[in-house]
Amino acid sequence: MRLAELSRRSGVSTATIKYYLREGLLPPGRQVNATSAEYDEEHLRRLRLVRAMIQVGQVPVATVREVLRHVDDDSLGRTIRLGAAMWTLPQVPEPDQDDEYVRAAQQEVATLLDRLGWEMAKQLTTVSPAYRSLVVAVAAFRRIGYGWGAEQLAPYAELMHRTAVLDLDGMERYPSEAEQIEFAILGAILNEPVLQALHRLAQEEETARRYGFE
Amino acid sequence: MRLAELSRRSGVSTATIKYYLREGLLPPGRQVNATSAEYDEEHLRRLRLVRAMIQVGQVPVATVREVLRHVDDDSLGRTIRLGAAMWTLPQVPEPDQDDEYVRAAQQEVATLLDRLGWEMAKQLTTVSPAYRSLVVAVAAFRRIGYGWGAEQLAPYAELMHRTAVLDLDGMERYPSEAEQIEFAILGAILNEPVLQALHRLAQEEETARRYGFE
Repeated sequence: MRLAELSRRSGVSTATIKYYLREGLLPPGRQVNATSAEYDEEHLRRLRLVRAMIQVGQVPVATVREVLRHVDDDSLGRTIRLGAAMWTLPQVPEPDQDDEYVRAAQQEVATLLDRLGWEMAKQLTTVSPAYRSLVVAVAAFRRIGYGWGAEQLAPYAELMHRTAVLDLDGMERYPSEAEQIEFAILGAILNEPVLQALHRLAQEEETARRYGFE
Repeated sequence: MRLAELSRRSGVSTATIKYYLREGLLPPGRQVNATSAEYDEEHLRRLRLVRAMIQVGQVPVATVREVLRHVDDDSLGRTIRLGAAMWTLPQVPEPDQDDEYVRAAQQEVATLLDRLGWEMAKQLTTVSPAYRSLVVAVAAFRRIGYGWGAEQLAPYAELMHRTAVLDLDGMERYPSEAEQIEFAILGAILNEPVLQALHRLAQEEETARRYGFE
């Protein structure tokens, strides 16, 4: 298809498509003559992915380029290529090791991972942004006097693991590895607002069941 | 206790405490003489709550005042007082009724609530910010070509309901209604980052279990 059709089918303006091409977020089309190029279904899919990252996820262009570089690198293992999807999310800075609440939170998270038998996550603590976010969030709870630790976290972690199993089962329904990784990136951006909204709606449902509306 | 001790025990500076008092976020102490007032454990608890909303949740002062006014109003039912906790979270604007993806998402969410038997949530759709967020998030998925609907959402919703049951069971462990509502507000601010981090960590664990590290 030509640029005009790519624009029509994707709902992205030709100016924006040209910008993505210049920025290297979309591979060039096959040049058919001096002024026009031909695009295919892969371009359409990639365009959808780029647009979701930039417009829905508000991911900076430089990060999008970095993520796509990993996604397209067949020499990397699948866990690492899927892990790149997580970089599209806002990152938490390294927690302050001099903070007593941070150290207590690290201790509790270590106990939690042992208790859950999350052997893989235990090996990823130095590189995982998710681990860092958890330590920071647990430290914030402890700082205002709530002694949240492994015992309170464990039942939540079990439910989140079952959620992650649904995520990966859903992903594996897509036939090719390229589509699976694309879905993982879209999932990272779009799934969390869905889960958060479902959680809040479930809280309302359960609150009204227990205490009524009066 | 005097102001200096309230500051020491809460870790909040006396200047900030005076600001909260002026803004009506903290009730005045009992005046013991012309220049000093006496504060009690209730002040300490309220201070912790206000600080969590403002410093951790970055809730605007006017919203904090509005939330506290509802929390302190014994004439309101418990569901409504607990619902006020949700206002501390960033709000999603009313979805655009002229958007075909929004209308399709509303249809799917209606089917989902029927299927789950969430009778309370069905009655709250016109006022619930959680419902609005869900419609917006599902519409975003559909807009980029993923036909997410009731069937895909239902297993996630079941897990989120079990999460909400944990939330409310945890809350009910606190003896007084005032403390329960306080915990619900802190939960709304602090719990979601914990859940999100646990979910991402569980995704890493499950990904590495399925595909290894290579």
